[in-house]
Amino acid sequence: MKKENLVFIAQSLDGYIADKNGGLAWLESVPNPDGIDMGYRNFVERVDAIIMGRITFETICSFGIDWPFTKPVFVLSNNVKSVDEELTDKVEIVNGSLISVLETINAKGYNKLYIDGGQVIQSFLKEDLIDEMTITTIPILLGGGHSLFGDLDHHMSFDLIQSEVFLDTIVQSTYKRKK
Amino acid sequence: MKKENLVFIAQSLDGYIADKNGGLAWLESVPNPDGIDMGYRNFVERVDAIIMGRITFETICSFGIDWPFTKPVFVLSNNVKSVDEELTDKVEIVNGSLISVLETINAKGYNKLYIDGGQVIQSFLKEDLIDEMTITTIPILLGGGHSLFGDLDHHMSFDLIQSEVFLDTIVQSTYKRKK
Repeated sequence: MKKENLVFIAQSLDGYIADKNGGLAWLESVPNPDGIDMGYRNFVERVDAIIMGRITFETICSFGIDWPFTKPVFVLSNNVKSVDEELTDKVEIVNGSLISVLETINAKGYNKLYIDGGQVIQSFLKEDLIDEMTITTIPILLGGGHSLFGDLDHHMSFDLIQSEVFLDTIVQSTYKRKK
Repeated sequence: MKKENLVFIAQSLDGYIADKNGGLAWLESVPNPDGIDMGYRNFVERVDAIIMGRITFETICSFGIDWPFTKPVFVLSNNVKSVDEELTDKVEIVNGSLISVLETINAKGYNKLYIDGGQVIQSFLKEDLIDEMTITTIPILLGGGHSLFGDLDHHMSFDLIQSEVFLDTIVQSTYKRKK
């Protein structure tokens, strides 16, 4: 089965995924009375497992909600050694090079992977390991914060697969790596 | 007549308007056999005059082409004192605070202004002087370069006016400042 690493993330108009204080309230700045999910559930349905970084993992844990994922989650971390008991069958800590981490995860039969969290996405892009990105742009300038994209040694081209407008004001575009 | 300051600019997927070497070749990375202008001529028709920074002005002059603008151009600069003789009726150097520059230009009857160049756009945004932005996103990651957007003290929200796809792969979205 084809191995694919996919991104699904929201950014501000100026390319941040969290504001200067790490805040995410701006994500809710567009009224969404019917709580539409902008393709998120369909996207998660498509993937076999999720890879995220420690910061994203700890942010989700800090929400004090029930664990929100039904797919297996792999947390990339050299520091976290174990997870809370109630998550042991849902979350696995992995570390090492991205290539070896991917080999391990793919070997378990998880081929379509949701790559989540700013630093993890940047690491994957640096090694040209991202196949598809769905980027949802909230029409707000934050003026600083945590960037979605980071430094790269070379240009990387993509093809647009789809572009859609939600709630009259949010543009969501899906890009596929052009190789 | 209503005064409006408008932006029309292309960026990379990671928010740069020029690459690490100041290069612009990536703007042509999507084949455009019929040379469609993605709304540029219509946009320029709408404006009364153009305000640009010194770097943009010098970049255009360096192209060695005929002066491309039919609308009056104002170059914001404290250093440039005069322009080549053949441009004296087309280009005027202006300086001072943005508010006073705008007052001077508006007093001449130019109300809809095209604000061009990265640093000038950032200065106008810092003072909340941009009313509308048309952003054309080329599907390429440059991995560094000159950012379209800069640091801001506060969040600024926009409404989406229009979003369109050109050449199957370039997303162009127009935003209006929400006040």
